[in-house]
Amino acid sequence: MALIKKPVTGMKDILPSEMKLRDYCIGIIKKTYAEFGFTSIETPCVESLANLNSKQGGENEKLIFKVMKRGEKLNLAEAKEENDLTDSGLRYDLTVPLVRFYANHANELPAPFKALQMGNVWRADRPQKGRYRQFMQCDIDILGEASNLAEIELILATTTTLGRLGFKDFKIRINDRRILKAMAAYSGFTEDQYDDVFIILDKMDKIGLEGVEEELKKYLGGGEISSDAKDIEKIDKYTELFKIIEGKSGVEAIGILADKLGDFLEEDVREGLKEIINSVEGTKAAQFEMVFDPTLVRGMSYYTGTIFEVSMPQYGGSCGGGGRYDKMVGKFLGQDTPACGFSIGFERIIMIMMDEGFKIPGESSKVAFLIEKGIRGEKLQEIISKAQKDRAAGKQVLVVRMNKNKKFQKQQLTEQGYEEFEEFYSNPIG
Amino acid sequence: MALIKKPVTGMKDILPSEMKLRDYCIGIIKKTYAEFGFTSIETPCVESLANLNSKQGGENEKLIFKVMKRGEKLNLAEAKEENDLTDSGLRYDLTVPLVRFYANHANELPAPFKALQMGNVWRADRPQKGRYRQFMQCDIDILGEASNLAEIELILATTTTLGRLGFKDFKIRINDRRILKAMAAYSGFTEDQYDDVFIILDKMDKIGLEGVEEELKKYLGGGEISSDAKDIEKIDKYTELFKIIEGKSGVEAIGILADKLGDFLEEDVREGLKEIINSVEGTKAAQFEMVFDPTLVRGMSYYTGTIFEVSMPQYGGSCGGGGRYDKMVGKFLGQDTPACGFSIGFERIIMIMMDEGFKIPGESSKVAFLIEKGIRGEKLQEIISKAQKDRAAGKQVLVVRMNKNKKFQKQQLTEQGYEEFEEFYSNPIG
Repeated sequence: MALIKKPVTGMKDILPSEMKLRDYCIGIIKKTYAEFGFTSIETPCVESLANLNSKQGGENEKLIFKVMKRGEKLNLAEAKEENDLTDSGLRYDLTVPLVRFYANHANELPAPFKALQMGNVWRADRPQKGRYRQFMQCDIDILGEASNLAEIELILATTTTLGRLGFKDFKIRINDRRILKAMAAYSGFTEDQYDDVFIILDKMDKIGLEGVEEELKKYLGGGEISSDAKDIEKIDKYTELFKIIEGKSGVEAIGILADKLGDFLEEDVREGLKEIINSVEGTKAAQFEMVFDPTLVRGMSYYTGTIFEVSMPQYGGSCGGGGRYDKMVGKFLGQDTPACGFSIGFERIIMIMMDEGFKIPGESSKVAFLIEKGIRGEKLQEIISKAQKDRAAGKQVLVVRMNKNKKFQKQQLTEQGYEEFEEFYSNPIG
Repeated sequence: MALIKKPVTGMKDILPSEMKLRDYCIGIIKKTYAEFGFTSIETPCVESLANLNSKQGGENEKLIFKVMKRGEKLNLAEAKEENDLTDSGLRYDLTVPLVRFYANHANELPAPFKALQMGNVWRADRPQKGRYRQFMQCDIDILGEASNLAEIELILATTTTLGRLGFKDFKIRINDRRILKAMAAYSGFTEDQYDDVFIILDKMDKIGLEGVEEELKKYLGGGEISSDAKDIEKIDKYTELFKIIEGKSGVEAIGILADKLGDFLEEDVREGLKEIINSVEGTKAAQFEMVFDPTLVRGMSYYTGTIFEVSMPQYGGSCGGGGRYDKMVGKFLGQDTPACGFSIGFERIIMIMMDEGFKIPGESSKVAFLIEKGIRGEKLQEIISKAQKDRAAGKQVLVVRMNKNKKFQKQQLTEQGYEEFEEFYSNPIG
């Protein structure tokens, strides 16, 4: 029987050293989020395709691993299309399942409902270094809280967690979809152009303001660089908005921008965003900075208000993000429920911590009992009894038969973190 | 868009109250097994069908959820058989993946390797009460330890864990596949009859010794009750073996049985089993009893030596089990590696604890801050600042907007375990 040793394409085995770090991080995350009143929930890894393909998942809907129907439902000979073979798939995120969960259990849940989810998701992405087809997501969401208390608590909880995991000097970039829209409207773009304009704006950190200007000219010119006076005017108005706040800090920048936008931006949005920044800055329990960033777009079309992202430029970009999505629950429940979420890039964070050689603090001491092969009966029992006592006292005790090459065995155990060794021989002389 | 609120057939959502208990149990399990030197590992939930269908999974191989091929590999129009559509599936247990993992990473792992796995598995069983198509398994395994130190440590670790979860007065039933075989051989059954005889023996607790006798007569008679003298002699010899140890305790029963079996049973098996029982009884850290049970069969054909089961009759049967499977690794590696494992029935245990109204000990105190809807700006910041201080001191603090029906809100929060309430108004008079 030729069996396959490797994991399936694009997925990975997790070895003890990484697993220990993951378990440690999961512990910190669950404990910290609990302090903020988040409660854990879990949904099945398999969801119905009707839900997964409900246009909430954007590009991820193209990456679904589909699960085949079983038994009588599967009729291979008569199958004409994919629907005859499958009606469920592995989830690609935790947001669609959360909203289904909330719709299913709304009557049993408190209002507002603060949920923590840590679970695997699957995406049939092209396999590449550091990116796998199964990976863990870690989401917190608040359903049923319309005020920006939701954003404040989500950002505080996430940053406190990141701080406790040893991260500092990071940034939380924040923006609002309504500011994005107001800026586009003020400049004269039409509503059907917004999404295209935002896709171009999203490249700002790579191509700069001039690059954005060029791409907008090309977009409005239908592929050719436009020289139409009206187009140029729009683009000038748009880019000016970014120029007037250059070098300005969070709340000040919002003020300047909002004054310029005038009636295009509701006062609520402006004041709400300021309040989030001030409240977080004034009460934060980690070392980071809130930054207003009018170029922050975030891809998912379901966002309706604030959007935010954890930025760690020293580690190559974003380590998580989220925002408000007040319209998604209504799709399931028929009635809108305010909703806001924040997702930590769990796999990214683990990768960074491993690369940095993170040491787990306060591990209990590890002892290895090496016992000679011949030891049996009562003598064996005595040794195990001793191990049991040490364990009851909180130590980690490995009881293991002595190998022929004891030196190598001890060396291996030292690599696994064993600091103390006790050796046992059937004959006291050894 | 008509979206589906229910989970897919046979799978379930896990609500916060159950999730809290699960997280608590997972914590105890991971901590206790770590004390015994087990290290966590994880494998992908998806495995290649070649491995899943390698005849190690018994009946479970019929219950696989298959995952469809993607992209170019999936050619629906030309597909003639299932293999054209799928080459992977969701794992139905953690043993096959563990052995694949070990084969893949043998050079990076210590010898012996003590693994802990906690993860979901999937089986397309007929949905029924309390039994789901996705459920968590919790396995510990020792690979590379040939001596019964493996069995002793597995049983001690598992029973210590169960003890810490509040279970007591349970039994660990133990047997050995080699005793099962020796008893059948001694009685005159031929090797090709063993598995059928064991399937009948396995019903002992339901149909009693007389029932087993009847079924054996029917089996040897090819469906009709046999009255052949040779058949009757075999069956009499077989049932006598159970009669001579009736009412005898573990080690004594093994002695009586082994004396009777004589050369049919190797002395190693007899002494090894006694040693396990004595060592565990002499060093155990929980309230339970080791019981030798020659009727214990356990279904999986991969077991080669000792087999054991956690028996909790007050909760309707088995809550876990395991045994030695020294031949399975060789199927992947080409070279045999001794292996022994113990699996806790995690879902069963959670169900029992929920039914018994288990209270999680030592939870941190939970405070809810109810803040009036109108509070914003600096006042809001002050309140959040207070919450942050309480959290830093280890409290769980929920900051939440006051509902119109404050009494009902507090009642709901009390049900969620909030004991303290603080109310905040924009105007001190309220």
